[in-house]
Amino acid sequence: MSDLFWAGDERAGELLTEQAWLAAMVRVEQAWLDAIAARRIAPGSVALTGLVGPADIDGIARGAESTGTPVLPLVTLLRERADAAAARWIHRGLTSQDVVDTGLMLCLRAVVERLRAELRAQIEAMTGLIALHRHTVMAGRTLTQYAVPITFGLKVSGWLTGVLDAADAVDRVRLPAQVGGAAGTRSAIADLAGGAAEAAELIIAATRLLGLEQALPWHTARAAVTALGDAMVRCTDAWGHIATDVLTLSRPEIAELAEPDAPGRGGSSTMPGKRNPVLSVLIRRAAIAAPPLASTLHLAASLAGDERSDGAWHTEWASLRTLGRRTVVAAAQTTELLTGLRVDTDRMSATAAGSWSTLTAEQRSIAAFTGADAPQDDYLGSTQTVIDDVLARAAALLDSTR
Amino acid sequence: MSDLFWAGDERAGELLTEQAWLAAMVRVEQAWLDAIAARRIAPGSVALTGLVGPADIDGIARGAESTGTPVLPLVTLLRERADAAAARWIHRGLTSQDVVDTGLMLCLRAVVERLRAELRAQIEAMTGLIALHRHTVMAGRTLTQYAVPITFGLKVSGWLTGVLDAADAVDRVRLPAQVGGAAGTRSAIADLAGGAAEAAELIIAATRLLGLEQALPWHTARAAVTALGDAMVRCTDAWGHIATDVLTLSRPEIAELAEPDAPGRGGSSTMPGKRNPVLSVLIRRAAIAAPPLASTLHLAASLAGDERSDGAWHTEWASLRTLGRRTVVAAAQTTELLTGLRVDTDRMSATAAGSWSTLTAEQRSIAAFTGADAPQDDYLGSTQTVIDDVLARAAALLDSTR
Amino acid sequence: MSDLFWAGDERAGELLTEQAWLAAMVRVEQAWLDAIAARRIAPGSVALTGLVGPADIDGIARGAESTGTPVLPLVTLLRERADAAAARWIHRGLTSQDVVDTGLMLCLRAVVERLRAELRAQIEAMTGLIALHRHTVMAGRTLTQYAVPITFGLKVSGWLTGVLDAADAVDRVRLPAQVGGAAGTRSAIADLAGGAAEAAELIIAATRLLGLEQALPWHTARAAVTALGDAMVRCTDAWGHIATDVLTLSRPEIAELAEPDAPGRGGSSTMPGKRNPVLSVLIRRAAIAAPPLASTLHLAASLAGDERSDGAWHTEWASLRTLGRRTVVAAAQTTELLTGLRVDTDRMSATAAGSWSTLTAEQRSIAAFTGADAPQDDYLGSTQTVIDDVLARAAALLDSTR
Amino acid sequence: MSDLFWAGDERAGELLTEQAWLAAMVRVEQAWLDAIAARRIAPGSVALTGLVGPADIDGIARGAESTGTPVLPLVTLLRERADAAAARWIHRGLTSQDVVDTGLMLCLRAVVERLRAELRAQIEAMTGLIALHRHTVMAGRTLTQYAVPITFGLKVSGWLTGVLDAADAVDRVRLPAQVGGAAGTRSAIADLAGGAAEAAELIIAATRLLGLEQALPWHTARAAVTALGDAMVRCTDAWGHIATDVLTLSRPEIAELAEPDAPGRGGSSTMPGKRNPVLSVLIRRAAIAAPPLASTLHLAASLAGDERSDGAWHTEWASLRTLGRRTVVAAAQTTELLTGLRVDTDRMSATAAGSWSTLTAEQRSIAAFTGADAPQDDYLGSTQTVIDDVLARAAALLDSTR
Repeated sequence: MSDLFWAGDERAGELLTEQAWLAAMVRVEQAWLDAIAARRIAPGSVALTGLVGPADIDGIARGAESTGTPVLPLVTLLRERADAAAARWIHRGLTSQDVVDTGLMLCLRAVVERLRAELRAQIEAMTGLIALHRHTVMAGRTLTQYAVPITFGLKVSGWLTGVLDAADAVDRVRLPAQVGGAAGTRSAIADLAGGAAEAAELIIAATRLLGLEQALPWHTARAAVTALGDAMVRCTDAWGHIATDVLTLSRPEIAELAEPDAPGRGGSSTMPGKRNPVLSVLIRRAAIAAPPLASTLHLAASLAGDERSDGAWHTEWASLRTLGRRTVVAAAQTTELLTGLRVDTDRMSATAAGSWSTLTAEQRSIAAFTGADAPQDDYLGSTQTVIDDVLARAAALLDSTR
Repeated sequence: MSDLFWAGDERAGELLTEQAWLAAMVRVEQAWLDAIAARRIAPGSVALTGLVGPADIDGIARGAESTGTPVLPLVTLLRERADAAAARWIHRGLTSQDVVDTGLMLCLRAVVERLRAELRAQIEAMTGLIALHRHTVMAGRTLTQYAVPITFGLKVSGWLTGVLDAADAVDRVRLPAQVGGAAGTRSAIADLAGGAAEAAELIIAATRLLGLEQALPWHTARAAVTALGDAMVRCTDAWGHIATDVLTLSRPEIAELAEPDAPGRGGSSTMPGKRNPVLSVLIRRAAIAAPPLASTLHLAASLAGDERSDGAWHTEWASLRTLGRRTVVAAAQTTELLTGLRVDTDRMSATAAGSWSTLTAEQRSIAAFTGADAPQDDYLGSTQTVIDDVLARAAALLDSTR
Repeated sequence: MSDLFWAGDERAGELLTEQAWLAAMVRVEQAWLDAIAARRIAPGSVALTGLVGPADIDGIARGAESTGTPVLPLVTLLRERADAAAARWIHRGLTSQDVVDTGLMLCLRAVVERLRAELRAQIEAMTGLIALHRHTVMAGRTLTQYAVPITFGLKVSGWLTGVLDAADAVDRVRLPAQVGGAAGTRSAIADLAGGAAEAAELIIAATRLLGLEQALPWHTARAAVTALGDAMVRCTDAWGHIATDVLTLSRPEIAELAEPDAPGRGGSSTMPGKRNPVLSVLIRRAAIAAPPLASTLHLAASLAGDERSDGAWHTEWASLRTLGRRTVVAAAQTTELLTGLRVDTDRMSATAAGSWSTLTAEQRSIAAFTGADAPQDDYLGSTQTVIDDVLARAAALLDSTR
Repeated sequence: MSDLFWAGDERAGELLTEQAWLAAMVRVEQAWLDAIAARRIAPGSVALTGLVGPADIDGIARGAESTGTPVLPLVTLLRERADAAAARWIHRGLTSQDVVDTGLMLCLRAVVERLRAELRAQIEAMTGLIALHRHTVMAGRTLTQYAVPITFGLKVSGWLTGVLDAADAVDRVRLPAQVGGAAGTRSAIADLAGGAAEAAELIIAATRLLGLEQALPWHTARAAVTALGDAMVRCTDAWGHIATDVLTLSRPEIAELAEPDAPGRGGSSTMPGKRNPVLSVLIRRAAIAAPPLASTLHLAASLAGDERSDGAWHTEWASLRTLGRRTVVAAAQTTELLTGLRVDTDRMSATAAGSWSTLTAEQRSIAAFTGADAPQDDYLGSTQTVIDDVLARAAALLDSTR
């Protein structure tokens, strides 16, 4: 899949596409049918995979307006097409929201796995950059102006800190199944299973089949959704920070960094020779657009009401799709950016040397204050210990997730 | 087109689809080629329509990441496929942003036309509801509790006021062409046309071919975009207000309104006989999700920099696509809701009668204060004059746009 | 007033302070009392000014939670303190929302007047900059990289276009009075005035006393509020764009612009000699934070329900206060920035000269394409005509508002 | 403190007021001075408490525009007023951002402590409601319409799940000190302390004095801030959900719930006898307005650049202030709402009985499908086991935080 309106969208592959969601909802119905068959509630199961496919998406989507979700048209198709005996047992005991929410969680699990892999790759790339450049002196800048000397390794440590924080947030997300029935009482399930205890076992079994987390009904308690949104925005925050720095430092007047070279990359439709930092431009785009999407998920959570929400819930699906795909795209672009980032150490040195008097004004001021002679060093203070501590954190995270 | 993640999406037809945007960008290139041919800058023109089509979208979209926009891959294809002599003149003088922005404005013109038609239909539907129900007494409610009597016609007048305000905002949007060249100086155009005056005439001619508004370059002055976003959100604000009222008043305990009947509409996947107010649910969904999208357009405008923005601009396209399609979907759903809205006047009367003592507490309090006898009327005050004034405003708008 | 959390807040003076709002609500009650006295509904009026003051704010604010608005505690105080005969007539016929909304519109009128003055001053400052620099050649930059030559006057024309668009939006805002009574029927007013026609005259009279626009009740049709929010964000968008450019161009490696000098301005707590572009930093701060506030106003509008909203309305007041004050602060900072902006034309020339080959790559490419000799000019195309057109628009706006 | 624009603001007391932030910044300077004195870098310390107070706030706030933060004017005052010998050592080694960020974290620690206490009280109140009403049958409603039977205890379990999720998020927030020096290298500190190892020990000591978490410099890695914002919005999400339900269920036509009675609470300025659910209205207000504020914090994080951000950082302070105070206000209102919530079990029973045929349509449909006789029970399925599991989670949280 690709999207003319969002350059690079194809990097997200089939994650959270219409087809992926449809397949995930079919997996939910399959797991449920298998589970009720295994417990002899249904007389048997039947393979649902392949019963609906890409050609059905448009029809199901058009059928969705009538009830507000795609579940009823999907179930209708599945029952029509599946083997007759088991077919009528499809979806029995579930409610539409169970299938929608659990299907989305399956899709989001794949997103989270991809994000974890990208975050690891970024951490490794930055670890490598730090190893190379922990002593590469450059001008530190605050509020756009020269401040004190830093090293490029320290700057990358700052980027890495943001990415490690994002990785922590991604590690903490929960991916629960939703099995509550019409209003969270699981009554139809209990009736079919022969009691609440039997219903609980059945739900545990179906959830295991899907590999999701066991959870109490969360039809109107949407923290699992908002936490996913927040974690994704923590990622785009961290990458936006990196992109902002790369955009600044690759300005021709500064030219300390350059994006990776790739054939045709960064060109213009009219200006020969132009080399735009297009990866950073596109990452920044995602970072600007992401927070309001996560905010929409929170708003939907806060407007939840009754035993199923009258519109708030319905805003979540497309918001998650858009945020999920864009986050993966930005992840992959950031990995590529960091992996191939070109560092002009000569230029860094030259600029630092040219502004050395400004960069050491604080040092001289301290010396004047204490009455000591101003040291003739590079005024890098704790740079190396800060770097070491960030690297240790990175190593711990890489270890724990290997 | 339809969207499994946004029930009802098909109501927006081909508006702002990838195909529509691609075709619009081809129209821009065509108008430009025609214009430079007419002024004998290019040796001739050639029909570009049909040179690229749906099968090319994925390739162009995938090619877009390299330069950040789809224009270079599109122009490359057009030049390859068009008649050799004229082909090499395609896009000469323009910059990518000219084509992207102008193409979007062409797409948005179609959105605005559709919105105007829907708004007219809504105004007419509400005018009809008011005619029927201007004297239908019902309980007025504030902060969820009974307040004073109103009529259902007055309530609809309040809805209508919101829709008229939205229609005013839609009427005021500008749809400018963007022709600035690489950095807003139109230098390549002037070089090709033989001077600034000639460039101006050429731009006027091309803009006329497209039927868009003449404008100075607005590469980093994005008020045309933010005004479109704001106008669309004014629409969803007005419709969200209506949907909120319908959702409340169609609760079974209140039951003064019901959504239009349609086969299968509002059903459940497990509960036979359920009739969910699904149009209002979906309209409310759009109203909740729209403001952050318009906000993203503003943010993009505020972060504009240099002669073309480094990421802020790139957030606009998908935001406009999503906001535009969703606004049209909500427009059509609102039109259907209003056109077929079912009003239970008996229930309104019964509820008003049952709460009459509460509804007239203010009236008695006023009478007690002035020492007058409390009037034995329906305490509707200026209801009819307010309704007349809203209807007059509606009539004026319908007249002016007929 | 000042705000430790928002540097520069004192530039907004007393606009939209608690005291200003309280005084505005008293003005509303006064106008109403005068109007009903003039029509001999009340036996007479009494001066309310001075009856409540700064010392009462805390008490009224604390009393507001009980009913959700400050109106009941305010009216209670006024009735206690005013001359006995007229006092009991205070507020008769109005509802809390009438006083809250109308009071806010009075406060916002003062904000709008201040914004108009600031916008005029900015337009004049930019007109002056353009006059000085319409021929000052500099490098045009797109996506952070060198593009084609522009002049600094052209860049300022782009800023000016944004400010003119914002001024148009500010000029179009409406400032309506709210007089609807408990549920928009004006029933208490009609009872007091002796009929709907009399009520209408009374409302016209009171609205005239306040100098606000006549309007039908808009308790749940909130376009007047959202339009104000949108107009303010159009302003911060335009200023954010300017600040972004100044921040970039005042980087030490570019150094084409510098903020106005002022004693102590831009210093650091530890680095002697630092000159941070602090006006631009603070303007950019406002531009980043403004769009979500306007978005909150839209959301409140879209969640309006019944005859008075159950929470959505209550979000507006503080949002308007914060957005209003911050917009004025940013306005004043932008005026100061533009008025004293320092332009290093030598540096502009030097950078353009040093990158001339890159800046004219497009020109050579066009020449190669057409087979003509590349012109030996400054490749500024239509720069002067674009500037003339923007100046003409500025002149027209200044004329029309003089 | 109170705020006329935000009813109930006084519930947040002095949390995050200007005075609280000023005092917190003084505490930061004090801890630093004490730490450098203890290590004999400074010749001694001096008590800073009381040197600046409420009367200085306006002056410091007005002085802040010049450098963008209040730190320089604050430090200037402290040095002027403190005992001469130690005074000149105040702030040596720190940068403005160290003081601003650490001071805010101190303020936010107090917010978090208050939130934890309120969340505990809410959990206890809901545990009590569940104990009383776990068997109180009522109509379950989805998309505003009758669905299947639930109990009020189950509904409260859903609310409680949201609050427990929020409490988890609040428990996970970090409150780090910021000690990085001008650009995160701690160079001035190392120069003063005599090396990086000595600087590290010094920072550990100062951080311990403040009771904050040790952290590497996070000047441009803002996850600590965004996580605080996200946690606060998780809270308002959970409370917004509760308020939405209370608003619906206290409508006069439903009347299953009522807000706590309090003298004057919920009254109207014109309608005697009105009882508006004002706590829920005000909670809902906060829930609507909170997500965009947390979103602004994310945006600020994503736009971070250089070694200190040029405007993005500056948006955080007021956003945190507003979000923090409002969250505490909504917390206290929610605690009061839950503690005194009035439940009309007769009305719940009557409504459930009156809609029983609708509420059991699913049950009959299941029975018809399986061919079994429809059970003659209350169709509550797993209600009690779901409640037990939620209660167990609540008990675990209460235990772990006792």
